[in-house]
Amino acid sequence: MQYGYFDDEKKEYVITQPDTPLPWINYLGCENFFGIISNTAGGYCFYKDARYRRITRYRYNNVPFDFGGRYIYIRDNNLNDFWSPTWQPTQNKLEKYEFRHGLGYSRVSSIYNKIETDINYFIPLKDNLEIWFLKIKNNKEEVVNLSIFSCVEFCLWDAFDDATNFQRNFNTGEVEIEDRVIYHKTEYRERRNHFSYFACSEVLEGYDTQREDFIGAYRNWSNPIVVEKGKSRNSHANGWSPIGSHHIKVSLEAGEEKDIIFLLGYFENKIEEKFDPPESQKINKKFVKEIIDKYMNKENVKNGIIDLKDYWDGLLKKFQVESPDMHTNRMVNIWNPYQNMITFNVSRAASFYESGISRGIGFRDSNQDLLGFTHLVPERARTRILDLAATQLENGGAYHQYQPLTKKGNDAIGSNFNDDPLWLVLSVATYIKETGDWSILEEKVPYKNKPGTEQTLLDHLKRSILYTQDRLGPHGLPLIGRADWNDCLNLNCFSSEPNESFQTTTNTEGMVAESIFIAGLFILAVNEFTEILKRKNLEEEVNKYTEMVNKMTSMIYNHGWDGDWFLRAYDSYGNKVGSKECKEGKIFIEPQGFCIMAGVGIENGLAEKALTSVNQHLATEHGIVLLQPPYGKYYIHLGEISSYPPGYKENGSIFCHTNPWIMIAETMVGNGDQAFKYYQKINPSAREKISELHRCEPYIYAQMIAGKDAPTYGEAKNSWLTGTAAWNYVAITNWILGIRPTYEGLLISPIVPKIWSKFKITRLFRNILYHINIERIGEGNKSTIYLNQKPLEGNIIPFTESGEKEIFVDVKIT
Amino acid sequence: MQYGYFDDEKKEYVITQPDTPLPWINYLGCENFFGIISNTAGGYCFYKDARYRRITRYRYNNVPFDFGGRYIYIRDNNLNDFWSPTWQPTQNKLEKYEFRHGLGYSRVSSIYNKIETDINYFIPLKDNLEIWFLKIKNNKEEVVNLSIFSCVEFCLWDAFDDATNFQRNFNTGEVEIEDRVIYHKTEYRERRNHFSYFACSEVLEGYDTQREDFIGAYRNWSNPIVVEKGKSRNSHANGWSPIGSHHIKVSLEAGEEKDIIFLLGYFENKIEEKFDPPESQKINKKFVKEIIDKYMNKENVKNGIIDLKDYWDGLLKKFQVESPDMHTNRMVNIWNPYQNMITFNVSRAASFYESGISRGIGFRDSNQDLLGFTHLVPERARTRILDLAATQLENGGAYHQYQPLTKKGNDAIGSNFNDDPLWLVLSVATYIKETGDWSILEEKVPYKNKPGTEQTLLDHLKRSILYTQDRLGPHGLPLIGRADWNDCLNLNCFSSEPNESFQTTTNTEGMVAESIFIAGLFILAVNEFTEILKRKNLEEEVNKYTEMVNKMTSMIYNHGWDGDWFLRAYDSYGNKVGSKECKEGKIFIEPQGFCIMAGVGIENGLAEKALTSVNQHLATEHGIVLLQPPYGKYYIHLGEISSYPPGYKENGSIFCHTNPWIMIAETMVGNGDQAFKYYQKINPSAREKISELHRCEPYIYAQMIAGKDAPTYGEAKNSWLTGTAAWNYVAITNWILGIRPTYEGLLISPIVPKIWSKFKITRLFRNILYHINIERIGEGNKSTIYLNQKPLEGNIIPFTESGEKEIFVDVKIT
Repeated sequence: MQYGYFDDEKKEYVITQPDTPLPWINYLGCENFFGIISNTAGGYCFYKDARYRRITRYRYNNVPFDFGGRYIYIRDNNLNDFWSPTWQPTQNKLEKYEFRHGLGYSRVSSIYNKIETDINYFIPLKDNLEIWFLKIKNNKEEVVNLSIFSCVEFCLWDAFDDATNFQRNFNTGEVEIEDRVIYHKTEYRERRNHFSYFACSEVLEGYDTQREDFIGAYRNWSNPIVVEKGKSRNSHANGWSPIGSHHIKVSLEAGEEKDIIFLLGYFENKIEEKFDPPESQKINKKFVKEIIDKYMNKENVKNGIIDLKDYWDGLLKKFQVESPDMHTNRMVNIWNPYQNMITFNVSRAASFYESGISRGIGFRDSNQDLLGFTHLVPERARTRILDLAATQLENGGAYHQYQPLTKKGNDAIGSNFNDDPLWLVLSVATYIKETGDWSILEEKVPYKNKPGTEQTLLDHLKRSILYTQDRLGPHGLPLIGRADWNDCLNLNCFSSEPNESFQTTTNTEGMVAESIFIAGLFILAVNEFTEILKRKNLEEEVNKYTEMVNKMTSMIYNHGWDGDWFLRAYDSYGNKVGSKECKEGKIFIEPQGFCIMAGVGIENGLAEKALTSVNQHLATEHGIVLLQPPYGKYYIHLGEISSYPPGYKENGSIFCHTNPWIMIAETMVGNGDQAFKYYQKINPSAREKISELHRCEPYIYAQMIAGKDAPTYGEAKNSWLTGTAAWNYVAITNWILGIRPTYEGLLISPIVPKIWSKFKITRLFRNILYHINIERIGEGNKSTIYLNQKPLEGNIIPFTESGEKEIFVDVKIT
Repeated sequence: MQYGYFDDEKKEYVITQPDTPLPWINYLGCENFFGIISNTAGGYCFYKDARYRRITRYRYNNVPFDFGGRYIYIRDNNLNDFWSPTWQPTQNKLEKYEFRHGLGYSRVSSIYNKIETDINYFIPLKDNLEIWFLKIKNNKEEVVNLSIFSCVEFCLWDAFDDATNFQRNFNTGEVEIEDRVIYHKTEYRERRNHFSYFACSEVLEGYDTQREDFIGAYRNWSNPIVVEKGKSRNSHANGWSPIGSHHIKVSLEAGEEKDIIFLLGYFENKIEEKFDPPESQKINKKFVKEIIDKYMNKENVKNGIIDLKDYWDGLLKKFQVESPDMHTNRMVNIWNPYQNMITFNVSRAASFYESGISRGIGFRDSNQDLLGFTHLVPERARTRILDLAATQLENGGAYHQYQPLTKKGNDAIGSNFNDDPLWLVLSVATYIKETGDWSILEEKVPYKNKPGTEQTLLDHLKRSILYTQDRLGPHGLPLIGRADWNDCLNLNCFSSEPNESFQTTTNTEGMVAESIFIAGLFILAVNEFTEILKRKNLEEEVNKYTEMVNKMTSMIYNHGWDGDWFLRAYDSYGNKVGSKECKEGKIFIEPQGFCIMAGVGIENGLAEKALTSVNQHLATEHGIVLLQPPYGKYYIHLGEISSYPPGYKENGSIFCHTNPWIMIAETMVGNGDQAFKYYQKINPSAREKISELHRCEPYIYAQMIAGKDAPTYGEAKNSWLTGTAAWNYVAITNWILGIRPTYEGLLISPIVPKIWSKFKITRLFRNILYHINIERIGEGNKSTIYLNQKPLEGNIIPFTESGEKEIFVDVKIT
């Protein structure tokens, strides 16, 4: 069953039934100001940091769910009847409901009792505000007299404090109302020089700023007393819960239409210009008024919409495919890069599942996100790489997270996730291959953000690798530390105390437990690094690092192979994890993916053997599960992984992030059919038809789908903020479709299903648009590239700065 | 306007209108298991620690407010109509609604469509469960067929994690259903050996354990789909949001009545007996079944109610007064000691304003709470004193808070609140005076909970005092450190960064800023200490400490007097705070109260001068404000106090905690009329008639009432958990009514209003019940005590272990 459909032309998902199984979310904002918005206008917005600069309140896991939001109530004053054009909060039955999630905007068209409305919610490219552009039209034969009430509830900035510290924050709320603008200025009197504002383009009939005055005690968002009575109370918030609500009256002739603009924004004054007059406690509104005035002009709003569309069209054209498969096209051309951008922007901070309170920008997370994002906006990727590297420690380790507002490492989480630093090598390699910008390696970057410690980024990469090399265990394999990519495999935690965090507790010295996953990642990263060194003509170094790779490879063969698949780890007693010998958790997906991606086992057949085992033991109709059999009980020496009920999360769900590793591995052994089959299983568009089971949004990836051992097998959870986005993008574009940037030029080597007879790709690479026509003329995987009908030696179209803007390429697969 | 009335006979407050201005809360539980319950059954329960052992979910600051709760839905299956006997969540108009908050229980009687219900919610004395004892009666002429649905929503134990970490906790929920019991066992599979249970006395028609199945998507507590349809779904929670809901069918003849019991409890198994069978993941229910069976027996439930009543009657009889003032009697005899017990039990952790997440047991808070609690249950006071002392640091300082579950100091908050240790001296003195138990001083207590550091409690007291003595500033006055009693006067904080906590940030060395408040407290504490030393015959020590007092007193006279009142502090530049010289914050209440209570200025008239200034500058019709004029802007050198809008909280509200200090001071200068006038201003019962303004509960004290500079002047906030309870109790019982335990016996010295011609007190003191009849025969304050018609020398009835159980005393005031 479906709750809507894809409008591929408009690049929108159109929801036609408001009561989706879960709120189906979209993101607004591109750079500093962001919002999440559901298909009934629920959600919130924030500036840069979802914890410390939360603008509006949202209640996670609420009953009813998905409140608060961006609410508009329309009241027909002749009939004393009111409704919401976004269905929530009033839930009136609408004659039309069409909620379109687009790229950076959401737009809802609805009709109630012949009053037609269209609201476009978006955040313009450069400015820090949400715009709600409301069109309202009277389709009746007679004049209607309407009252329109807006309402947002302000968060008192720090989302954690806002949700816990009521003995203080019920006393601090402050607002100002001036002209048509409600200013939320709690704590502006003290250490804040920022405030938020909620403006309306129309003359106000009234306003409210105290929640209880607007809603009424013991009422809720669905029946605010003010809307019911049709009259604002002009309340002024002093403490309690500041809101912003405008009341405007609109009279529409038959057929008449009207545009109304609401602006919800964030603004910072300079500290020395906070107040006006300077000795007062009143906000200096001189500077914010410029931006308010700008968007009170309808033309600027419309241009903002066009600019946003142009922006996204510009980004998406960097990779476009026309394949025989609709779901592939849709995801590759629109939704997957869009999700890549969102994960890049907000890391794992703010979604329907991420409360924005405890998590900042993840070191590992963001380096992985960069794999799918770099080609979209390379300049921003560059900045992010340098920000991440600056939170590295001098020993090469890294803070596991940093705060977006301060860009400083998060001490509460700390470091010692032993895989973390290696991911930096992958993101930097991706960046240079994409851009050819070798200068990034010479950038001076501090350690631990400490001035005076600056070294080149190249030095950071070296230390990243040596961090692993210096931490090898009894089998010569990398020590796992607190955890590797699988944050829940905590081999040194040994926690028996429920109030302890699995993430930050380590009770053993950690000198024994080893990770075959990190071994694979290490080889992959060092190989990338030697490729860089070669091009920097550092031959001696190359040899040194090649030697490390050879040694690690033989350690994997000697101690990391279990007979039919790669082992997962050695625990802190030196016992195997992910082995036939184990009672549970016999086989894990991660080392199969990463060892093969690193090239281990390709030449001697172990890779294919491992992939056969994956197919046999882990593959299911909804995707590949993380491990089998799941842990039926808690093992103190394994940690959080065994804390989940079987089939959920790291304990045997289809952890979608890992599936593309197997897809890539399958392409590396030449099995395009199997790679694509795995791709389709978790492609959200391909799962749209089972939305009542999948439950999450059909246009973006979820972190997990409940595994076959779970009672809710097939149900997705934790959508949007997941490395699944970047990795699936890499798998489909770089490996299945086979278009890979290299240092020397664009490599073309599709490993696609046998039944694909032809497909087309356009790829913008270093400012050249490649038009690639691919045709299968044989059953194999060999691609021959023709430029101007001439076959090319090898698979790489060499990059030259010839000034060409377009290159036409034909590819024959034999 | 009132929303109910006091039933003094039954010791209940009876709420007759469900839509009180704010939820009016009561507490259930006496020792380890606690609940908060509103007058519409909202609230939650927890075991010992409101953060780490939260049993049910509550949504703070929600819209609509005061959800979840302890819900019962009754459905008339003939009429397909349903309602809640507690008004919420359905809000049906009830023919009768009478919600009685009693001592440790809450009881609601209601009638809807002639179906009469009575629910008694309580926690029995020794066991860790809530009992909901429901009586239901059919007052119709015909038979009715009813469905009854219960519902609670389980919290996944750690209330912080539960409210933030959804990417994990939407996957962990687990339950078992067996017989008539729903077991909530999330994380029982791993590190927890505790679970909660929700049991019903009747045969189940069905049940639900997954919230969404019970409520239905996009619905809320007021219209669960299961109740609407009249049929449970027998849902089994796997992840998402576990709830407990029983469905039972009841058919009642005309006039028939039925009793139904629900039990909501917490239980811990031994780790080695967690599972049954041992190799399974199923809860071993053998031990919990004993307690369930016990309370499935109606007689045991009824006995539990009687035991609870007896328990409270026993406690309250320790001090009873019959005065000419109803409000005094009611508060002294019932509600004030009750509130003292609650503050003792939960410190500042869990209320409508305290989310239970960030705060543990406060060092200062609890020592003050003990002043009003010790006489109620001295043994528990003793344990608490030793627990508190064990969190002291070796330098005499103290952790500002400790966690109730571990009894370990809270590192996140730390120490350096320089007044903290001195409060321990006051609580210990109170304890010994009350009990005569000198052995407590010899108890060996560790520092920082570190085994091997144990010293006597007497040593702890010494270090407490030396902690201050060792930290004197340029004027010889005590350094304030991070803050003194006024947590918001942060003279060393200097914070310009909004994400910093005022409580934990210190940016100056703190070697200059001094507190006259601590100076007063120091004298008071040292005087108490020397009284102890005298009785331990440590004359030399006595002289040493007396010398300290003399020196500190002269420092106050030299540097702490501002001409008409006591100064508040010197800031970190050495400038005065709370002086005529200041532009704002010229006069503060705290040093006036504490210096005079310490005896400073009594003999030379400064005390009376200061009290005149209080009356002139701080007294208002709703109580005495904390300071005048309030700070109109933020001063970085003053900290959080100036962060509040004028008239709120520490910035000039009527901070009720401080008012009794002035009452006591007034009695010390012999002004009983004024003392009592101040007492009446903030006496919640006396404010009942202005409930629509006061808004908080009329039966207990609130922390603050908005001051005259606030737009909401007269509105109370932060009720229940405040030192206001203990201090008002001390002021009225010990000083105005004038019944004070001393080491040698009971002191009687009433300083009451002139118009009180007679009143009676009974006081149980060291197992002797004193019947005290007091008569005024003159205009003065001199009390003469008659035992067996014979006048006594002095004011103290000497305590002797004569075996007497009752003593009859007559007192004449001349």
